[in-house]
Amino acid sequence: MRIVVLGAGLVGSPMALDLSAQAGFDVTLLDRDKNALQKVAHFPITTVEMDVSDTTALKNILAKFDLVVSAVPGFLGYSTLKTIIEAGKNVVDIAFFPEDPFPLSQLALDREVTAIVDCGVAPGMSHILTGSAAAQLDSVETVRILVGGLPQVRSWPFEYKAVFSPLDVIEEYTRPARVVINGKVVEKRALSEVERISFDGVGTLEAFNSDGLRTLAKTIPARDMAEKTLRYPGHVQLMEVLRHSGFFSKESKLVNGQMVTPLDLTAVLLQKDWKLQSGEKDLTAMRITVEGLKGEKKLRHTYELLDFYDEKSRVHSMARVTGYTATVVAGLLAEGKIIPKGLVVPEYLGAFPETVDAILKGLDERGVHYSEKVEELSKISK
Amino acid sequence: MRIVVLGAGLVGSPMALDLSAQAGFDVTLLDRDKNALQKVAHFPITTVEMDVSDTTALKNILAKFDLVVSAVPGFLGYSTLKTIIEAGKNVVDIAFFPEDPFPLSQLALDREVTAIVDCGVAPGMSHILTGSAAAQLDSVETVRILVGGLPQVRSWPFEYKAVFSPLDVIEEYTRPARVVINGKVVEKRALSEVERISFDGVGTLEAFNSDGLRTLAKTIPARDMAEKTLRYPGHVQLMEVLRHSGFFSKESKLVNGQMVTPLDLTAVLLQKDWKLQSGEKDLTAMRITVEGLKGEKKLRHTYELLDFYDEKSRVHSMARVTGYTATVVAGLLAEGKIIPKGLVVPEYLGAFPETVDAILKGLDERGVHYSEKVEELSKISK
Repeated sequence: MRIVVLGAGLVGSPMALDLSAQAGFDVTLLDRDKNALQKVAHFPITTVEMDVSDTTALKNILAKFDLVVSAVPGFLGYSTLKTIIEAGKNVVDIAFFPEDPFPLSQLALDREVTAIVDCGVAPGMSHILTGSAAAQLDSVETVRILVGGLPQVRSWPFEYKAVFSPLDVIEEYTRPARVVINGKVVEKRALSEVERISFDGVGTLEAFNSDGLRTLAKTIPARDMAEKTLRYPGHVQLMEVLRHSGFFSKESKLVNGQMVTPLDLTAVLLQKDWKLQSGEKDLTAMRITVEGLKGEKKLRHTYELLDFYDEKSRVHSMARVTGYTATVVAGLLAEGKIIPKGLVVPEYLGAFPETVDAILKGLDERGVHYSEKVEELSKISK
Repeated sequence: MRIVVLGAGLVGSPMALDLSAQAGFDVTLLDRDKNALQKVAHFPITTVEMDVSDTTALKNILAKFDLVVSAVPGFLGYSTLKTIIEAGKNVVDIAFFPEDPFPLSQLALDREVTAIVDCGVAPGMSHILTGSAAAQLDSVETVRILVGGLPQVRSWPFEYKAVFSPLDVIEEYTRPARVVINGKVVEKRALSEVERISFDGVGTLEAFNSDGLRTLAKTIPARDMAEKTLRYPGHVQLMEVLRHSGFFSKESKLVNGQMVTPLDLTAVLLQKDWKLQSGEKDLTAMRITVEGLKGEKKLRHTYELLDFYDEKSRVHSMARVTGYTATVVAGLLAEGKIIPKGLVVPEYLGAFPETVDAILKGLDERGVHYSEKVEELSKISK
């Protein structure tokens, strides 16, 4: 089966490598940057130098493939996905574009395409596992997702590094966080409601409201639902100060006769401290708690992930937990083991126990281990 | 006696008002900004709208006066002082210009002018009182000046406000602090060696190395000498983060195709939080400790100032403690009670007990109270 990975970034390349190790895949990696493609030069992967924003060229080349994995930058994500669906190709998408994906549902059904979006770690496994727990319960009361990618070495002052651009990270610190309270979507200030969370093997972290529920807010009928991002203690305070002072502002200011956008300068300056370099070790921590009723019992499903940089493959944890979710799902899609058709958000996959088991098994084989625990909180008095 | 105050800023105007209340002064206030001059419209003060950077015009107008008080911005300070001395006029200067004043010594002696520079609170009273203690001791071992101007109301996150521009404040946070260690001038990193200091009536403050010794480093032969700036706890940490991240940098960065100087943007952004507005209450805290030998005893002289915004006159503490030092000294100069000639740094005044007493008395009359304490630390064993 011929599969093409769009985007040879820090997640795209490890995905191409992982897919090339799966039986039956003939893998092509496509990027506009020749240097990015060099990283897979010594592997059985075909490379194509091309700009995906050239829609006509993209449509032409897609005709040659059976399956697509899209790992393009977020701002190109939606239009690229539309082109892929129009080309009639099944796709697993981790572009994490800001747009609502559901408007593409009808198109995907018309073209008889399975288009699985947001298929990384969070969104991705966060939603699959929430969907799985929700499917096992009669009704869902609360969903709580705590997730963060962090450097293993904590450097003053931010104790934070990421493979993403500072602009993408700061977006999380400024965009209002949509949470569900009493069944209604409510906006909370980003960085708000900081609480301390302990993770075995990591220590104390701080969690704050972030806008990560995405489609879950519509698809899971829970009373209360929230996503919080995890950072080492102290990071949030500094971000609040920078935000308060206007360093994250997109409004231009007159500075010595020229208009300057503070956010753009801030992103340039923070790049130095925030850029997770090749070989720098990171970790990913996630905890998902879903509480609800099952018969006469109140249950709590807890899933935990604690993943580290892989010394052997030299692949960042953030690339592993994001990319391998997509490659495992792509493998299942290729084998015809994904049941839903049309536009598929990851929580839909969670409704199929065999699919969830297969995804967890595939990730386990790649060293990405999720733990699962179900507790009985109380009996419901009738 | 005709006296002119150059600069109608937050310190210049209260000085003009204070001088106009002294017997025998015919006061003129000069500024290029008509609005600034409006503030003294209802007082017996002549106003002149003029730009002091026009040296010829300045020299012409100076001819009409017997005494000058210079409160121009720092960057204009040195050249303005030179013009005043060339015009043969006695002057009290609080421009706090960055240049070394001593090269003007010969000119001042040639023109038979008394030019008293740095005549505010710190530098100013800090140096006068250090000079006074030094003159009373046989030898000086340590000099320590702790000083800060602070808002009375502490607002998150910086808990700081000033009448100065953020650029001037940030300069204190970036310019290496020259201190004296074992008789040698040593540069310390600005914001370094933070320690907690308690002030009765204010609480716990943080003190850090700053570059405030100025001429003292040359004029007082002490073994160890340092100046530290006082802020509410937490401020220093934020400043260290901003400095570390490059927000205080004067080096331009390429941002979206244009060159941007981070410091300039930062100054624009911080203005909102840092600007002490008219009517906002501030305070000034200073503690000067001078230790040394006197006969067979080791003594410690301690001077303390804790001054608050004046509700009645609506004059900021920072303007009171700075400006009234200069107006009291100007009064003494007018009365012929200042002995040294030529270029006079304030520590020189400290060598004259009657002058120090007269300055302290003048300040006391204006509600600015310095306490003085002498302790015996130990007997020297021969």
